[in-house]
Amino acid sequence: MKRVLLINPNSTASMTESMLASARSVAPHVAFTGWTSTDGPPAIQGEADGKLAEPPLLELVTRAGADFDGIIIGCFDDTGLAAANGIAGCPVIGIGQAAFTMAMLRGLPFSVVTTLSVSVPVIEQNIRGYGLTPWMRRVRASELSVLETEDESDAAMGRIADEASLAVAQDGCGCIILGCGGMSRLAEAVRSRVSVPVLDGVEAAARLIGALG
Amino acid sequence: MKRVLLINPNSTASMTESMLASARSVAPHVAFTGWTSTDGPPAIQGEADGKLAEPPLLELVTRAGADFDGIIIGCFDDTGLAAANGIAGCPVIGIGQAAFTMAMLRGLPFSVVTTLSVSVPVIEQNIRGYGLTPWMRRVRASELSVLETEDESDAAMGRIADEASLAVAQDGCGCIILGCGGMSRLAEAVRSRVSVPVLDGVEAAARLIGALG
Amino acid sequence: MKRVLLINPNSTASMTESMLASARSVAPHVAFTGWTSTDGPPAIQGEADGKLAEPPLLELVTRAGADFDGIIIGCFDDTGLAAANGIAGCPVIGIGQAAFTMAMLRGLPFSVVTTLSVSVPVIEQNIRGYGLTPWMRRVRASELSVLETEDESDAAMGRIADEASLAVAQDGCGCIILGCGGMSRLAEAVRSRVSVPVLDGVEAAARLIGALG
Amino acid sequence: MKRVLLINPNSTASMTESMLASARSVAPHVAFTGWTSTDGPPAIQGEADGKLAEPPLLELVTRAGADFDGIIIGCFDDTGLAAANGIAGCPVIGIGQAAFTMAMLRGLPFSVVTTLSVSVPVIEQNIRGYGLTPWMRRVRASELSVLETEDESDAAMGRIADEASLAVAQDGCGCIILGCGGMSRLAEAVRSRVSVPVLDGVEAAARLIGALG
Amino acid sequence: MKRVLLINPNSTASMTESMLASARSVAPHVAFTGWTSTDGPPAIQGEADGKLAEPPLLELVTRAGADFDGIIIGCFDDTGLAAANGIAGCPVIGIGQAAFTMAMLRGLPFSVVTTLSVSVPVIEQNIRGYGLTPWMRRVRASELSVLETEDESDAAMGRIADEASLAVAQDGCGCIILGCGGMSRLAEAVRSRVSVPVLDGVEAAARLIGALG
Amino acid sequence: MKRVLLINPNSTASMTESMLASARSVAPHVAFTGWTSTDGPPAIQGEADGKLAEPPLLELVTRAGADFDGIIIGCFDDTGLAAANGIAGCPVIGIGQAAFTMAMLRGLPFSVVTTLSVSVPVIEQNIRGYGLTPWMRRVRASELSVLETEDESDAAMGRIADEASLAVAQDGCGCIILGCGGMSRLAEAVRSRVSVPVLDGVEAAARLIGALG
Repeated sequence: MKRVLLINPNSTASMTESMLASARSVAPHVAFTGWTSTDGPPAIQGEADGKLAEPPLLELVTRAGADFDGIIIGCFDDTGLAAANGIAGCPVIGIGQAAFTMAMLRGLPFSVVTTLSVSVPVIEQNIRGYGLTPWMRRVRASELSVLETEDESDAAMGRIADEASLAVAQDGCGCIILGCGGMSRLAEAVRSRVSVPVLDGVEAAARLIGALG
Repeated sequence: MKRVLLINPNSTASMTESMLASARSVAPHVAFTGWTSTDGPPAIQGEADGKLAEPPLLELVTRAGADFDGIIIGCFDDTGLAAANGIAGCPVIGIGQAAFTMAMLRGLPFSVVTTLSVSVPVIEQNIRGYGLTPWMRRVRASELSVLETEDESDAAMGRIADEASLAVAQDGCGCIILGCGGMSRLAEAVRSRVSVPVLDGVEAAARLIGALG
Repeated sequence: MKRVLLINPNSTASMTESMLASARSVAPHVAFTGWTSTDGPPAIQGEADGKLAEPPLLELVTRAGADFDGIIIGCFDDTGLAAANGIAGCPVIGIGQAAFTMAMLRGLPFSVVTTLSVSVPVIEQNIRGYGLTPWMRRVRASELSVLETEDESDAAMGRIADEASLAVAQDGCGCIILGCGGMSRLAEAVRSRVSVPVLDGVEAAARLIGALG
Repeated sequence: MKRVLLINPNSTASMTESMLASARSVAPHVAFTGWTSTDGPPAIQGEADGKLAEPPLLELVTRAGADFDGIIIGCFDDTGLAAANGIAGCPVIGIGQAAFTMAMLRGLPFSVVTTLSVSVPVIEQNIRGYGLTPWMRRVRASELSVLETEDESDAAMGRIADEASLAVAQDGCGCIILGCGGMSRLAEAVRSRVSVPVLDGVEAAARLIGALG
Repeated sequence: MKRVLLINPNSTASMTESMLASARSVAPHVAFTGWTSTDGPPAIQGEADGKLAEPPLLELVTRAGADFDGIIIGCFDDTGLAAANGIAGCPVIGIGQAAFTMAMLRGLPFSVVTTLSVSVPVIEQNIRGYGLTPWMRRVRASELSVLETEDESDAAMGRIADEASLAVAQDGCGCIILGCGGMSRLAEAVRSRVSVPVLDGVEAAARLIGALG
Repeated sequence: MKRVLLINPNSTASMTESMLASARSVAPHVAFTGWTSTDGPPAIQGEADGKLAEPPLLELVTRAGADFDGIIIGCFDDTGLAAANGIAGCPVIGIGQAAFTMAMLRGLPFSVVTTLSVSVPVIEQNIRGYGLTPWMRRVRASELSVLETEDESDAAMGRIADEASLAVAQDGCGCIILGCGGMSRLAEAVRSRVSVPVLDGVEAAARLIGALG
């Protein structure tokens, strides 16, 4: 049984738990472990937070040593992904990278619905860096904060589904990508409200990490 | 246990067997079945052969019905991939598509070493179609025919390794992709002769197909 | 006088006739012959239909032998184009390929108005495959079926013109491409309703095929 | 019968004649007229010459008025093409633009063999401007001057064929484009020495101009 | 102190003055001189005007000789930029080129708000030519003429700000570029009305020209 | 007088000094200060070193506070650039980013000559991320280590010049970019040995940083 470590680079443990649940639901034969980067910021929104998140994240990657067959960086910005790849003893995937790749494999141009505007340039830079610009239609901010996506009420889901519906109407996209690890737990609910496939990075990474090993 | 069907769209059964062996070696927990398209041409080299191969291949896809969790098209040209996706009841992946995707996931620009020059435009058209041109350095013909790759002597391997070494020296590529299903059985031998990672489409597809389900 | 064969890969003979009329109107000095693929599906919408259409289409290409100076594939999906090129004894052009090329030659970024959503990914894959993504603004579905475009009433034309007008308003395109052979007979009417050039693939192919010979 | 004006923007009349001969050989049913821009520089090599060539060229375009059905700019740099399109009463095509388009229509990635290094950035800028970068492999200078291509001896042809052969060996191109109007008369001779299709811009423009009208 | 010449290729002297004022406000330590191309058209809108503007512009570039350390072409179409670079004795930059580059350096995808629709294809061709398509979201026409941007009333500013706001709402852009030299004097006013950075080509060129010397 | 801080993210102070000298030689009116990241690794080669370098680098950026008008990250990998931009109170530029931009502004496709192979994927990822792939010809490793570039003998310069000459001969590039801050002091010597412009990132950044303020 493959052992995969999901590292949440922010310090919000409830988000680690909801990402683990998503991962397990789509890859039941993988043994997932979740680590929360307790020295990271409570949320990662834009480059300023990324800076705070990266050093403790990379320490966790180092500590993982040879204990795992794969590592998932549980932040849609793919924080520290290249550096983690350089030091890990096993394959590493980011949930942003995984989601974009899955859309490409399925032949679907994508729009992303993320949290705040401050995250949009980081995500677009990553998509260009992976060479996947031909598949990108638009990266949209829902203007929900990362922590608001954790809100138990339906308000967050409604806001995300509304922005996703706008994307379907305006962008010419063939699927929607949820652009934040915290949205993973809302994936099913959003799916029931949107007419095109809705891809979640945590699910995509949980499916793809085994293929890299 | 996932059941995956590998369809060889050409009629050379020995190639089906060698592709199955490669697939099983990297994905031991998947139950692979191999079908040979006995009404296909003995080899697929260029578009003229592709035309002969596609109808019987698609018949096999139809016959697969609901018996499998995934289908691999075992031809590097990804013959009939889009059409197969339209009629299959499960995800379908091509071995060319799988190899290009794996290179991108690992961050490695690639050169392809394929069989004859006649196959080069088909492969380049596919790479453009997947939007992965930024990762392509060069598609090279070894001028070995598909059936010569089945040759048991070391000559075929030597020719492929030589072309791969040229690619490393001249193209600025970070990995080599073996551009024919028949080369899969030579992957380990080529690896021992080349200084960069050597990706094989059959192995890549065997790893990725489970992620799509 | 050049002899050009227009093959309609679907079995709807009225569509063959209307495409012939369009071709003749823009290239009066070419001798056009129209063949209907009677063993094809009544319409081609998405990859599933493409699969059914391709084998009988390629049989017609083979039968054409040396009797023609050029062949036009009369389906906007460019069904079987690469395979046809491999077996024909003369140049072959697809009406999608022709329309995209004409827009590029005229320096006009384009939006496509096609029939159903199921055709959008096929068309986008083709545009990427031809390397013409920088000219594509958006591929839009009018949600008219192929056969509805044959409707003699004005409803079809109105729906297409409405979607084209939306494209002009929202996409930043410099021209509209009609994304179905069945829309060819409506080209003039749509032109009277839209403020930018309206390109029709049948017309474009009829003009360009002579240049390839 | 279509009347097409070929304007040579340099003042070397012998080059006008050789381009006309090439045009007529591939499009015998078009009535070609050739004008030499007697106020232009004797050859156009790089942007400095382009500046001198453009104003008298555009005067000729204006003088052409309504007397022609199409205009070919007979310089591989496509000197003044956009401006000519703005003032001409008929379609205008450049021989560079025509050659790149023909390669794309035939599905062939291209390398260009042009005259001097000073012309390379202009040609590459044009290829990017037409959005055809995915088809470009390399623009190579033969270091023959434009006027040396007019040399009756075999030396010029030999130098061009040598550079073309290097391109075939090193660039992964599927065809060679002759990157100067003055090379048009050498096209057949180069073809006999090179293993891939050799495209000539004058021939390509002579074939395509009728399609634009 | 660096001496920089700003050449306005149109004959409207008030526009030269307003561009000079913008340049001086952002680069106070540069000695700017402004020349108006009195033989140029009163405004440059589309390729037809560009043709009239280029020869007298290039004469001014020649006359500048060795008197300056840098030249700015004060037209957003970058009229004659390549030719000017070939003949000038110092670096030359265009205000369009400068604005696109500044957006890229700051990591911001851009939409352009320009004057009339006729200018859109010229600007898009330039952006493709500079290879910066991945940063372009949309080039929008405000349908204000160049001379209307000189209007002292608030109407012009309002129209530009409205179109810029539409771009922010619809295009997914991270900044707005003012697509006409005549809009430079309105930059501050537009900034107060738009929620993203507003880049002006004159300011960008005034900042960058010193870096090229 | 503008105050610009050049931060060397590795701990080798002699490299800081040689970069400062390069910067001052091309931008004499800027007041450059150099800081060496004494807690960084002695050299940055690949992602593993990047990880060690980033946190102390970002601490220096924070410490810079409001004391400077611009910051240059003196590492060709542009280590921590995006994060630095997020926290700095002034514009930040990387020497890799600056060199690529300068090549684009001058219209020159580039090849990079860097240190070890391990740095190639990082540099290529950055170039894709800036959207400048159309200008990249090849990123080449000289297989000199960063510290060997500091060698006072001519051996390092010779190795770099040899690789640069190979690039000119094989890549179709219009300029060479020196791909390491430590190569800056060799720029003049390499220039005397290579037939195309040689761009140095430190010089480029020293020229461009003032434009961003």
